[in-house]
Amino acid sequence: MQYHFNKSQQSIESLIAEVSRHHIEHSTDPAIRDSKANTPHSPVTPDETPVTVFFPRSTSDVSVILKACNERYTAVTSFSGGTSFGGALTSTRGGICVSFERMKSIVALHEDDLDVVVQPGLGWVELNEQLKDKGIFFPVDPAPGASIGGMIAMSCSGTNAYRYGTMKEWVISLTAVLADGTVVTTHRRPRKSAAGYDLTHLVIGSEGTLALVTEATLKLAVLPQNLHVGLVTFDTFQQGVDIVVALQRAGHQLEALELADGPQVYCINYSNLARVDMAEKPTLWLKFAGSSLQLVKDQIKTVKALCEEQRALTYEITSENERIGVLWDARKCIGRALVMMKKDPSDLFMHSDCAVPISNLAALVEGTQKLIQEANEANQKSSVAPKQPWFCANVGHVGDGNVHSSIICPAADKSMVDEVLKKVARLALSLEGTVTGEHGVGLKQRGALVDEVGVEGIDVMRRVKSAMDPKGILNPDKVFALDDKSVVKGAKL
Amino acid sequence: MQYHFNKSQQSIESLIAEVSRHHIEHSTDPAIRDSKANTPHSPVTPDETPVTVFFPRSTSDVSVILKACNERYTAVTSFSGGTSFGGALTSTRGGICVSFERMKSIVALHEDDLDVVVQPGLGWVELNEQLKDKGIFFPVDPAPGASIGGMIAMSCSGTNAYRYGTMKEWVISLTAVLADGTVVTTHRRPRKSAAGYDLTHLVIGSEGTLALVTEATLKLAVLPQNLHVGLVTFDTFQQGVDIVVALQRAGHQLEALELADGPQVYCINYSNLARVDMAEKPTLWLKFAGSSLQLVKDQIKTVKALCEEQRALTYEITSENERIGVLWDARKCIGRALVMMKKDPSDLFMHSDCAVPISNLAALVEGTQKLIQEANEANQKSSVAPKQPWFCANVGHVGDGNVHSSIICPAADKSMVDEVLKKVARLALSLEGTVTGEHGVGLKQRGALVDEVGVEGIDVMRRVKSAMDPKGILNPDKVFALDDKSVVKGAKL
Repeated sequence: MQYHFNKSQQSIESLIAEVSRHHIEHSTDPAIRDSKANTPHSPVTPDETPVTVFFPRSTSDVSVILKACNERYTAVTSFSGGTSFGGALTSTRGGICVSFERMKSIVALHEDDLDVVVQPGLGWVELNEQLKDKGIFFPVDPAPGASIGGMIAMSCSGTNAYRYGTMKEWVISLTAVLADGTVVTTHRRPRKSAAGYDLTHLVIGSEGTLALVTEATLKLAVLPQNLHVGLVTFDTFQQGVDIVVALQRAGHQLEALELADGPQVYCINYSNLARVDMAEKPTLWLKFAGSSLQLVKDQIKTVKALCEEQRALTYEITSENERIGVLWDARKCIGRALVMMKKDPSDLFMHSDCAVPISNLAALVEGTQKLIQEANEANQKSSVAPKQPWFCANVGHVGDGNVHSSIICPAADKSMVDEVLKKVARLALSLEGTVTGEHGVGLKQRGALVDEVGVEGIDVMRRVKSAMDPKGILNPDKVFALDDKSVVKGAKL
Repeated sequence: MQYHFNKSQQSIESLIAEVSRHHIEHSTDPAIRDSKANTPHSPVTPDETPVTVFFPRSTSDVSVILKACNERYTAVTSFSGGTSFGGALTSTRGGICVSFERMKSIVALHEDDLDVVVQPGLGWVELNEQLKDKGIFFPVDPAPGASIGGMIAMSCSGTNAYRYGTMKEWVISLTAVLADGTVVTTHRRPRKSAAGYDLTHLVIGSEGTLALVTEATLKLAVLPQNLHVGLVTFDTFQQGVDIVVALQRAGHQLEALELADGPQVYCINYSNLARVDMAEKPTLWLKFAGSSLQLVKDQIKTVKALCEEQRALTYEITSENERIGVLWDARKCIGRALVMMKKDPSDLFMHSDCAVPISNLAALVEGTQKLIQEANEANQKSSVAPKQPWFCANVGHVGDGNVHSSIICPAADKSMVDEVLKKVARLALSLEGTVTGEHGVGLKQRGALVDEVGVEGIDVMRRVKSAMDPKGILNPDKVFALDDKSVVKGAKL
């Protein structure tokens, strides 16, 4: 199938005129256009930058914009929080951007039903700020700047996913606008429905390629009670994994389980971002909560016994609020700490996002460490002049089998790091895993996705895309290349 | 779009010859053909009964069958447990049936990962029988005869859905065969993935219209510990709902919450199926469990206080195994008890499956009771000769806002009952509800689905169907009529 995009000045002018007739704001300011398309993880070339950014205020505004774009074969990217990785926001066919910064409201809160209806531009942090005093919250916790619209598009998760599940489990219904401007509501408001095809889940994780979400009904949870946080260190990563498997089999459901390797903890210490000096050893963070304090005590008793069995090096569990903040912040600062490992501002922060069945997690981490170490050494030996070694570290949402292996390297080493991360992805696939546990496909993982779901899987996705967006205007080239022979960025694994 | 089905003798003979060449068994025995297509909830006319039933043993067998059918424009229905309601199994275009009774195996059990890979013909009861000794189970609990394949097709749930969620939450990955015989694996085995469009959820609940599932990777849970069951009766249905809302807001997650009205309890007593004589009043069943006994005790304490506040009429909670069985069996016998209310074998058992946000549940039940009572009285007055009154009762998965209003009536009253159930569906929609919380659309709810998701929603489903099954051979006319102007059964709401 061959897709065609109209980038003519005449077409764009008529598009802006048509949309403006409906009193929808827009901006052609180069700085604003650039800010909606060009992020460190989604670089865009100037000739592909959107020619204008629209700021709709309602579902019907979005419908007007898409209908006008569809009639003119104009490509559409969308923007809410802008925190996604892997090029999901990158504009590849010019066109326009729909920014949701004027759609940040809570439309309706139903406390008795534990659900809330929101607009896509609202951030999860802002949402929770507004819910806090009511004792309820929305539990999906990706990067702090993320907004509901993007979180739906990317099917994101975070440290709470082990206990609460991902975005897939927390959306009841969506109002979405199709490429031709048609407005669809995927479900109504009950928690449970068997009413036809699951269009809600079809849109979640489709990365803005099938529809733009303009309203979402989200489930809410009651704020955790009797909170405790623990920090345990071990000699090996496997020991941490063993404890998590044993906890799971004992029927204990903790709030969160995060496991980092020694270099990752070194990086935390080096950054000085944490208010605790940590042993630079494989480290397990545990979060406990429950409506009954005794439940939490029982869980802690089991953890303590398991840690003794595994001869943990250090062990601390606290219910003291200030200390909980200190320990958990040490985990939450990892993203920023990794960036601080750059020796030069031009250095790159590259990482994997593989997930495997939990019983294969230690094999994935061990294999990954070996692959990266070998590549790092080979890179240093490749030159007679001394080369800066890469900094490499691993941190995992261990309860989900999801691990991020990070490499900080000079920009010149990009292709070598790309190569080794491809090997890591292949290793994950060989361990029955996925190449992306939570960050999504975007442009970068398109080749890997082919290896994961096969050409048959990609073909089904292509067919669905073509059925819902026949002209291919919505976020073209993300998840898979729009044309069979893609002319755009992204390489096969 | 106009679909065409080839029912010629020559085409069927060549189909059987082609499939048999691959050593796949089949039967043209009229009794067997009838048994796979004709259930009390899916009646089929003799001229539409499948002309043969195939018994595949593997994914590749199913691929051979579908490829051969697709080439010949032959309609395909499928059969596993045969317990679905609403005509999802009804054959409307002749063709063949694929029966999964030779595909009942556990393919792989991963205890550490709490997942299991199974074939679609395996029943959930049989699966749990095989898992019992390992202390783990699959928690989705529809009718006892249901099999995994049908449970996926119908996106089913049951009494455990309040605690564990529905089929949508318990499937990790599917191997599915498309209409043209292409085999697709939707995901790999990690619990979490953001790898492309969510084809898993697209297939779940598609009622065999998009693909046939040949293998499923299911999540498992640890068997509940410290089990307690309670039975409380009230003056009004609303009191039971109020307790459920209060429990939810207090952060208590029980195992199950089921609420029946007085007539429903009368029906249990009348059937003599339960081993307990119950007060014929609105009755709430509660199931408690947790890894900590104290947690359960805390939950029970809250329930007791709420019941005192609501001036419950009777109150019993037990941890004694024998008594747990007695109390819970009284809930589980409701389906059979309702059938026993028939005064004549030809009487009909008709029912609704609406779900609403829980805060609207009492309004739904009250409104439904009123609608049905009025219709019942009008029906009796419509004749000078005395007419048998309908028996009417309500039971709800109250934690999910899902209620089944049942009517037992003479066959002659069918159209009047159809009419009043349509009014009930409209009432549910006006209360932000769905017309089908767990039973699916099949043929019967197609008109109601249009009212629920709009022509826009149906149009998206149609487009997806057409993209994945261009000739429309897979379970034609279910969820929505295949042709725009349908010639088949099912009426608009």
